[in-house]
Amino acid sequence: MELPVLIETLRAALETDTVHLMREQLEDIHPADYASAIIEFPINDLWTLLSVLPRADQAKIFGYLPAEVQVELSIRISRRRLSPIIRQMSSDERADLFNRLSDEQRETLLPALALAEREDLLHLSSHEEGTAGAIMTSDYAMLAAEITVAQAMDVLRREAPDKETIYSAYVVDHDRHLIGVVSLRDLILAPVTMRIDELMNHVPIFASVDTPQEEIASLISKYDLLALPILNKNNQMVGIVTYDDAMDVVAEEATEDFHKTSTIGKLEISVKDAGILLLYRKRVFWLVILVFGNIFSGAGIAYYESTISEHIALLFFLPLLIGSSGNAGAQSGTLMVRALATGEIKLRDWGALLGKECLVAGLLGFTMAAAVVGLGWWRGGYDIAVVVALTMMLVVIAGSLIGLSLPFLLSKFKLDPATASGPLITSIADVAGVVLYFSIATWYLGL
Amino acid sequence: MELPVLIETLRAALETDTVHLMREQLEDIHPADYASAIIEFPINDLWTLLSVLPRADQAKIFGYLPAEVQVELSIRISRRRLSPIIRQMSSDERADLFNRLSDEQRETLLPALALAEREDLLHLSSHEEGTAGAIMTSDYAMLAAEITVAQAMDVLRREAPDKETIYSAYVVDHDRHLIGVVSLRDLILAPVTMRIDELMNHVPIFASVDTPQEEIASLISKYDLLALPILNKNNQMVGIVTYDDAMDVVAEEATEDFHKTSTIGKLEISVKDAGILLLYRKRVFWLVILVFGNIFSGAGIAYYESTISEHIALLFFLPLLIGSSGNAGAQSGTLMVRALATGEIKLRDWGALLGKECLVAGLLGFTMAAAVVGLGWWRGGYDIAVVVALTMMLVVIAGSLIGLSLPFLLSKFKLDPATASGPLITSIADVAGVVLYFSIATWYLGL
Repeated sequence: MELPVLIETLRAALETDTVHLMREQLEDIHPADYASAIIEFPINDLWTLLSVLPRADQAKIFGYLPAEVQVELSIRISRRRLSPIIRQMSSDERADLFNRLSDEQRETLLPALALAEREDLLHLSSHEEGTAGAIMTSDYAMLAAEITVAQAMDVLRREAPDKETIYSAYVVDHDRHLIGVVSLRDLILAPVTMRIDELMNHVPIFASVDTPQEEIASLISKYDLLALPILNKNNQMVGIVTYDDAMDVVAEEATEDFHKTSTIGKLEISVKDAGILLLYRKRVFWLVILVFGNIFSGAGIAYYESTISEHIALLFFLPLLIGSSGNAGAQSGTLMVRALATGEIKLRDWGALLGKECLVAGLLGFTMAAAVVGLGWWRGGYDIAVVVALTMMLVVIAGSLIGLSLPFLLSKFKLDPATASGPLITSIADVAGVVLYFSIATWYLGL
Repeated sequence: MELPVLIETLRAALETDTVHLMREQLEDIHPADYASAIIEFPINDLWTLLSVLPRADQAKIFGYLPAEVQVELSIRISRRRLSPIIRQMSSDERADLFNRLSDEQRETLLPALALAEREDLLHLSSHEEGTAGAIMTSDYAMLAAEITVAQAMDVLRREAPDKETIYSAYVVDHDRHLIGVVSLRDLILAPVTMRIDELMNHVPIFASVDTPQEEIASLISKYDLLALPILNKNNQMVGIVTYDDAMDVVAEEATEDFHKTSTIGKLEISVKDAGILLLYRKRVFWLVILVFGNIFSGAGIAYYESTISEHIALLFFLPLLIGSSGNAGAQSGTLMVRALATGEIKLRDWGALLGKECLVAGLLGFTMAAAVVGLGWWRGGYDIAVVVALTMMLVVIAGSLIGLSLPFLLSKFKLDPATASGPLITSIADVAGVVLYFSIATWYLGL
């Protein structure tokens, strides 16, 4: 059923009070789709539409609801009705919700859980944001090394309904140290009497609770894993991160880098839902900071006021020259920011890339100079044409090298290379453009 | 083993001609890691290091090699030695390689394959780049609806080694129409005598061969799928796209959008490996185009030459005002480009976002005006301060609205909203800034 049709059907059912009659039909809808449909309704109707389904489905749909709606439901719906859903949620989604609640709300929620769930929740929600710990789930399947394939299959069958995945099972020793990994595919193909330690892969890929999420995502992507086991400081296994959470991380990271490049602070909700003051706060800081960067360009212009007064025709080319410098800088800056973010290049590659960039920028500068030399002649004669062409060549090279180097410099100082790199590069390239232009003009025109 | 250690070990083994003695040790290394190590060697050594391993491993490692190396190996290594590897590759990787070869090379490769493989290859490689067809694999597991769970398990056991995944199996009718999907998890939990059509999910999520890859990735991400079935125009099942290929798409798309925003053409290889002429070609087009955009700013300045000559102090604020306009525009532009790319917002949302942006930009403009009014007073007195503050307020609003609207406009004309949006917004905001500034000055200063 298409989303608009589903919404209309649900609206009609709510009006005629026949939602309960549709139960079977609704069970066939994918939880992600059902979640997309019910968020269009006010919170009380949303609850009616959710609670008509079996509990396991309710928990799945609840997990697909946007974080704000989850929080609102947690506050508005009585604990007695909500707790069965919370208990059926996967442990990582539960921890996520918990992290968004106020202290008071958490205290209301906790008693609703069993002791084991409570401890698990407090444990999972104690990890720093942005680390593996914050997105891992404790719903994974563990096997002992000494059991047979047949016994392992029994374990997985018994535990399957509670686990996020049973397609990878982790083999641990008595101290929960990870000693191997075995896939359900291998289990199915192996003789039933084979021992797990003969079948398992002895060198599993793993990460630590405080590994940054981007690294987790790139490990999962590099090794095509379904899930990545996560170890604590004592090398004991404490959770897994599944590929679907890693996919979300890849998309979120890209968005964050994208925003940062243009000096927008980290936005945790969609731009469509963000309030006016939130958007203002995320944008104002760098906008004001960059004003002071532009003052240097202004000061550069002011310094050459006498040159400009004598050759007012020079002003015509100012936007063109500093614009080209900024554009060339933005290009090389963007290439570097993205390549540093995806790990294609490292800090030590700067030297090699610098040499290449000089050649590329030289070619670009030459082309650009050729593109404007005629315009210079037409507007200002031979002398101006020479000044403009020479300046264009140099500013494109200068801008490109600034664009190349700034992300490395930010990275060197342990800052995210994406931070404000777009406007910072433009600002610095502008200053360089102004100074180069007018000093060449002053020198060549003999002022 | 760490990568540098592995490389050293392999180098030592090559020098002493003892690679074959290390075979067992090498088999324990993950194919992705082994591929990263052997690409550090010249092509002949690389082949020695590859061919020492069992054929199934060779094919896996070959799949992890960069496309250029795969092509080089395909050309340099004799067909007799290469064809067993090619035959063991997964069908999507084989099609990928095939697409990169010249017609002549393809003709050398084709006879090395069995008829079925050949047809499959020609079929897979006939799909347009960027569509589901181009990344799908035909190595998926199919089941008939009438068989029992026990029979289905036998099918999967028999087919597992050849299939990309057996964790999702697709139920098709006699005409290959997709009628359901069943997960291995469900199969394991179900009674062995149950029929597949009782167990299967009757409303599988699917896509068509010509669905764009970004949509495939977002379906897989939205529904947390392991693989997405792909249908041809007659609604027959022809392949699947697996989650790991979708993850690659997400990352590639983000890089492409990132580059496009800063006017860099689509770069299919890493910036580290790209040659100078390739980088030049990918950058020069927009750089030259944008020169002509900046001419309008120049013309604006030239038009107001007399105002400027009388109040040369105005020039000091020019970079600051047009810079702020561009920065504000870049911010809102980036928010829109990314939100349009991830599907958070649609074309029809423009109106609602415009209203919000007016308010946000108004607040930002007011703050920025307050930030520069003192500077205006200090450099040029009361009148200049008023002109600068008023202009700042208006250019921030104008820049923001241009930044907000341009991506929608590009999208409306069926262009990718990311295309050149950064510099285009800056160029247009610059022109608007120049015109606003000097017309306010001319008017207020009564020139």
